[in-house]
Amino acid sequence: MIDGVMGTDQFSFTITARDSRARTGFVSTPRGAIRTPAFMPVGTAGTVKAMHPNEVRALGADIVLGNVYHLMLRPGAERVARLGGLHHMMNWPRPILTDSGGFQVMSLAKLRKLTEKGVTFRSHIDGSAHELTPERSIEIQGLLGSDIQMQLDECVKLPCSDKEAERAMELSLRWAERSAAAFGQQPGKAMFGIVQGGAVERLRIRSAQALAAMDLKGYSIGGLAVGEPQDVMLRMIETVEPFLPSHKPRYLMGVGTPDDLVESVRRGVDMFDCVMPTRAGRHGLAYTRFGKVNLRNARHADDPRPLDEQSDWEPARIYSRAYLHHLVKADEILGMMLITGINLAYYQHLMGGMRAAIAEGMLDDFVAVTKEGWARGDLPPL
Amino acid sequence: MIDGVMGTDQFSFTITARDSRARTGFVSTPRGAIRTPAFMPVGTAGTVKAMHPNEVRALGADIVLGNVYHLMLRPGAERVARLGGLHHMMNWPRPILTDSGGFQVMSLAKLRKLTEKGVTFRSHIDGSAHELTPERSIEIQGLLGSDIQMQLDECVKLPCSDKEAERAMELSLRWAERSAAAFGQQPGKAMFGIVQGGAVERLRIRSAQALAAMDLKGYSIGGLAVGEPQDVMLRMIETVEPFLPSHKPRYLMGVGTPDDLVESVRRGVDMFDCVMPTRAGRHGLAYTRFGKVNLRNARHADDPRPLDEQSDWEPARIYSRAYLHHLVKADEILGMMLITGINLAYYQHLMGGMRAAIAEGMLDDFVAVTKEGWARGDLPPL
Repeated sequence: MIDGVMGTDQFSFTITARDSRARTGFVSTPRGAIRTPAFMPVGTAGTVKAMHPNEVRALGADIVLGNVYHLMLRPGAERVARLGGLHHMMNWPRPILTDSGGFQVMSLAKLRKLTEKGVTFRSHIDGSAHELTPERSIEIQGLLGSDIQMQLDECVKLPCSDKEAERAMELSLRWAERSAAAFGQQPGKAMFGIVQGGAVERLRIRSAQALAAMDLKGYSIGGLAVGEPQDVMLRMIETVEPFLPSHKPRYLMGVGTPDDLVESVRRGVDMFDCVMPTRAGRHGLAYTRFGKVNLRNARHADDPRPLDEQSDWEPARIYSRAYLHHLVKADEILGMMLITGINLAYYQHLMGGMRAAIAEGMLDDFVAVTKEGWARGDLPPL
Repeated sequence: MIDGVMGTDQFSFTITARDSRARTGFVSTPRGAIRTPAFMPVGTAGTVKAMHPNEVRALGADIVLGNVYHLMLRPGAERVARLGGLHHMMNWPRPILTDSGGFQVMSLAKLRKLTEKGVTFRSHIDGSAHELTPERSIEIQGLLGSDIQMQLDECVKLPCSDKEAERAMELSLRWAERSAAAFGQQPGKAMFGIVQGGAVERLRIRSAQALAAMDLKGYSIGGLAVGEPQDVMLRMIETVEPFLPSHKPRYLMGVGTPDDLVESVRRGVDMFDCVMPTRAGRHGLAYTRFGKVNLRNARHADDPRPLDEQSDWEPARIYSRAYLHHLVKADEILGMMLITGINLAYYQHLMGGMRAAIAEGMLDDFVAVTKEGWARGDLPPL
């Protein structure tokens, strides 16, 4: 089926099965299909850190994410375009989703100044001055060649006052209109609007309704996984879900832990991205069917067992925990490479498991078994 | 032929062709054959930095090197043995050569104290106290499972007085006897003696003659490439070459640049190791048929051309110089992975070229063409 839908010239979303609120299917794009629910590894600055792109693909990714903020500063959007676009530059011929840059401007840049028009800021790399407007963000995403683009939005930090959340949400709605106008008609690509509204239900509903009325090709849920408890995040998803068009893909931005993914899929989310598996992989922290395993821990130093003999990724099956521990302790790059791959493998395995379970109407069973494994924890010491 | 000699239970060396003083052939071991002249990537602490072992093999390596000093401190030789040995631990089933630890004790360790018995020192990692004697070094190399082991030697820094060079050389000869006794009879493995003697011809000859009389399975030339000019190093090789048994492999330790390799092969050297291709790869410096290319240089920032479209390693052919430059500037691990691989590919390509040229009696022509390429330098700007 996946191969059958490649080569389409239209962006489209097909739901092939539902299980309660969860759905499975695929997003079709001219660059290939994206099986949903999908986890998108983060390729911040044009590389999924410590991974060859063919490995990222072999691990099961149909799509990766690129960050407008990082790429506009270095190597620069116009330069990427001259080099043939982001897909060609990073040797990833399949779909790419880009964020709008807004989130990282808020978290990384210096001397930010926000106006109705957009945001000006200074680069965290060299202090150079830049401006990001809804129109410029879409222009940059076009220069990169992104298949799924995001509107510029303002993401407030939680907790914040209702008034502040409302102001940012309303601004984001106006920016959604401008972004949609700037994006125009591009049948093979999509621009998603982003639901904002902090942790306030009525604001989230207002945002979802207004975006739904714009008839966009997909909808992101933003401003979550920014420090709030998981139950707040899940409540916000439940709040907006009925107001998002059922036949459009839903993308929960920047989420999350394996448990976050499972609980969000249950609530109707189709797409996710998160730095967690790759960042943790560079710090010796592995995600497995046993839950989180900290390979820096001395208890692994003499353990000849593989990290997870059922992993889809060979390194998890052939290298000993003792060797991985050694690589982490010695700050060896290979340790980062191996554990990043192991984590991405687990994330993709989890998504594949959920897709199969939804298709069979057995998501609850799958989730129960999966959580049982996490609760049991890591292998007992030898 | 390579497959034909695998599975032997004896360590042996076969010369299949000579071209003036240069030779080509293969070292046979129970773990596989080593085509000579051979370049051995350095796997310091149980990993060729930033490379998967299957990549190291795909790039043409028949053997890698491990460092006793690093491995005895972390993860520890006894621990490696409990984990099934270094080959199993690092997933490298082919031959491994280990140094004796002496060189790094001199360059890295703290509070060294040298006696006739051996050397005591403190770890540069945690300050713990350790002792390395000829017997303990061989024991450690046995625990690691090394196929080609080195005697403990004392390597003096150049320049030094003749008297100091002589004292260290004579001590190294006595340690060679003790190392050989400790190694005993191991038909499938080898222990090499190490020629020392600083930059003093008569000392080098004395060392080579004394070691030759011990009838060891191979001979290393140590104490070179430690800062002296290339002509001094080459003169020392020329000095000892006539005194080293012609039918035994000769290993020039810690060498070197591509030009060092070419000039040393011409003078009868069969084996090399050096951190240069891997270390340079982590710092944005590439070795190619155009000579050294510094990818940090801004002139690559907009260059869409591959680094070397004739490379044996796909990344050198498919990624643009601009992308490699970007990865280096952004300190991306993928940049280190790609350029390390590109460098190892070039080193192995060079060795393969020399082996083929020697077999055809055309080494001089090969060297002339190779040096012409280096002298021409990198591609002109677009």
